[in-house]
Amino acid sequence: MKRMNITHPTLLLDKRRCQNNIAAMAKKAADHGLQFKPHFKTHQSKKVGEWLAAEGVTGITVSSIAMAQYFADEGWKDITIAFPVNILAMDEINTLAGKVELTVLVNNLQAAEVLRDKLDHEVNVLIELDAGSKRTGIDPGRREDINELINILQGILKLKWKGFYSHFGHTYKCRGTAEVRKVFKDSLEKINIMIEKGGFKGADLHIGDTPGCSLVEKFSGITTITPGNFVFYDVMQQRIGSCTSEQVGVAMACPVVEKKEKRCEITIHGGAVHFSKDSIIVNDEPCFGVLVNLSETGIGSIENGRLVGLSQEHGTMKVSKELFGRINVGDIIGVLPIHSCLTAECMKGYQDFEGNAIDHL
Amino acid sequence: MKRMNITHPTLLLDKRRCQNNIAAMAKKAADHGLQFKPHFKTHQSKKVGEWLAAEGVTGITVSSIAMAQYFADEGWKDITIAFPVNILAMDEINTLAGKVELTVLVNNLQAAEVLRDKLDHEVNVLIELDAGSKRTGIDPGRREDINELINILQGILKLKWKGFYSHFGHTYKCRGTAEVRKVFKDSLEKINIMIEKGGFKGADLHIGDTPGCSLVEKFSGITTITPGNFVFYDVMQQRIGSCTSEQVGVAMACPVVEKKEKRCEITIHGGAVHFSKDSIIVNDEPCFGVLVNLSETGIGSIENGRLVGLSQEHGTMKVSKELFGRINVGDIIGVLPIHSCLTAECMKGYQDFEGNAIDHL
Repeated sequence: MKRMNITHPTLLLDKRRCQNNIAAMAKKAADHGLQFKPHFKTHQSKKVGEWLAAEGVTGITVSSIAMAQYFADEGWKDITIAFPVNILAMDEINTLAGKVELTVLVNNLQAAEVLRDKLDHEVNVLIELDAGSKRTGIDPGRREDINELINILQGILKLKWKGFYSHFGHTYKCRGTAEVRKVFKDSLEKINIMIEKGGFKGADLHIGDTPGCSLVEKFSGITTITPGNFVFYDVMQQRIGSCTSEQVGVAMACPVVEKKEKRCEITIHGGAVHFSKDSIIVNDEPCFGVLVNLSETGIGSIENGRLVGLSQEHGTMKVSKELFGRINVGDIIGVLPIHSCLTAECMKGYQDFEGNAIDHL
Repeated sequence: MKRMNITHPTLLLDKRRCQNNIAAMAKKAADHGLQFKPHFKTHQSKKVGEWLAAEGVTGITVSSIAMAQYFADEGWKDITIAFPVNILAMDEINTLAGKVELTVLVNNLQAAEVLRDKLDHEVNVLIELDAGSKRTGIDPGRREDINELINILQGILKLKWKGFYSHFGHTYKCRGTAEVRKVFKDSLEKINIMIEKGGFKGADLHIGDTPGCSLVEKFSGITTITPGNFVFYDVMQQRIGSCTSEQVGVAMACPVVEKKEKRCEITIHGGAVHFSKDSIIVNDEPCFGVLVNLSETGIGSIENGRLVGLSQEHGTMKVSKELFGRINVGDIIGVLPIHSCLTAECMKGYQDFEGNAIDHL
């Protein structure tokens, strides 16, 4: 429970853990002969991008035009916006496409028509497939619709249809390696059948969920992996089984402002505006973060404490009786986030253990 | 489903609705002879602060030192930080106390001691009471502890103990006027008994929950009301009964990027990074926002559509079959937020219906 000169809620980044996570995923991609275009939506950081570049990454994935602009400004030249293209933003798409090799997702005819009429520069296109996550994309079983869309895309001069993208978001509901592997395998099979029957062999196939990319060893048909969360991981990923708690690369550092002996609760400055409201259920109670030791050099081991309540600025942490006695008003405590992407988005910046500020969009 | 030149997720502010909400609460405070020190954590906006000043507000409530600084810079001179004082931030507290009449909450002896040793300027103190919300503050039944703390506070030269603050946050779990009034009355009674038995008559008593301040007519013993959310209200407040949906003063405007006919779902650019993850349960399903009409001049009536899923940038809205046919890819749709404070915090800025940008900390 060191202070580290921190006085306000601060998102600490453990560089060693993050760089290990990056190296491990880069190695996995290389070992399987896969392109590695990591998703930058988790860290949204130029500095963290440098660590990925150091592992050989040249192409990246983002989820908004704003993110694409942020990383284009930093010199990234191969950017995929893995979000159904927003046809209201053609000016920004044209500007981006004039600067970088841009790839967008086109999942419907309306979007294809607007791109046909308004594109100034060449753009690559992937079609998103919904292999079970029920968010966006076309069901791979709908081969006629996919064929029709590909025909139209191939008839548009400024579009280069490259292949498919799919986010197996339903792996997030799994627990354990076996379950993740089964969901991943079943989803991939649906896509591979469509690719084979449709005669699309050789098309790109981008797949990006962190549980799958962390736990699966069979990537048949996949050309490119695009995970993002693996750089930091978090409590949700640890619960799924994608990582151990010792791999989680970010932790909130929060001031203790009050103690409630009767309930063994401590109140921290650290609320929904810092952590986000994402939670998991532990012992029939919501859990918004897990107590963790902070040393002078990095994030330590987890402790017996859970963030059980969040309001705008307040966090309520339930701790063991023994810990309650050791934590004092005015201490700084560490908390592993449930969902690191949203915590980083709330905090808009990091601090490493040497005290350096690290950027976030 | 007008476009209004909006191309990206935008938080629209309906000035007429907000100013009506402000005028109504200011009148209620005046009618009951209460001081009105509204909480600025909801809007966090200098411009909205001007509308409150126009109704005679001179003292304000905030929930962080950063907010206090933001509004001190704008010229606000009477600021209460309604959060257990963070004793790690004494430099900032001293700077603030040198510029404005600052009031802080002190709920424990540790905090009192640090203030005693480190304050450079005079500061007002309120003791927070926990009348049932189980977040922070001292149980009003613990009269001895309260007495002891007051004695200590009164012995500190630079502190001026003024009275008590309590947030009846448990009114947020109520449904309907009768329930809110009962919780408010019971909570207030506990405090009034403590004040009477302790001989603290004449002490300030600040109370601030929006359900209570909106629905209660009996404020016996209260000197000051400090609600915040009432400026905007939201779906959560409408559900509690604090307001009608026609009073909700902010709505997200989001681009439609995809449609799923089989599930009657539309996908919008508008996710957890825009709305926050706060939700209510409707028909056994989470609801992250409610479809609403947007006209050229303001927010309109609600429609049969609910945001049933959010990921980082995606929102999934379930709509009626009839509406599904009318909404197209490339439209802008309006969504009332579940919790306007957190949506405003995510968006970090507003746009009014004349197209003007409105600031947010």
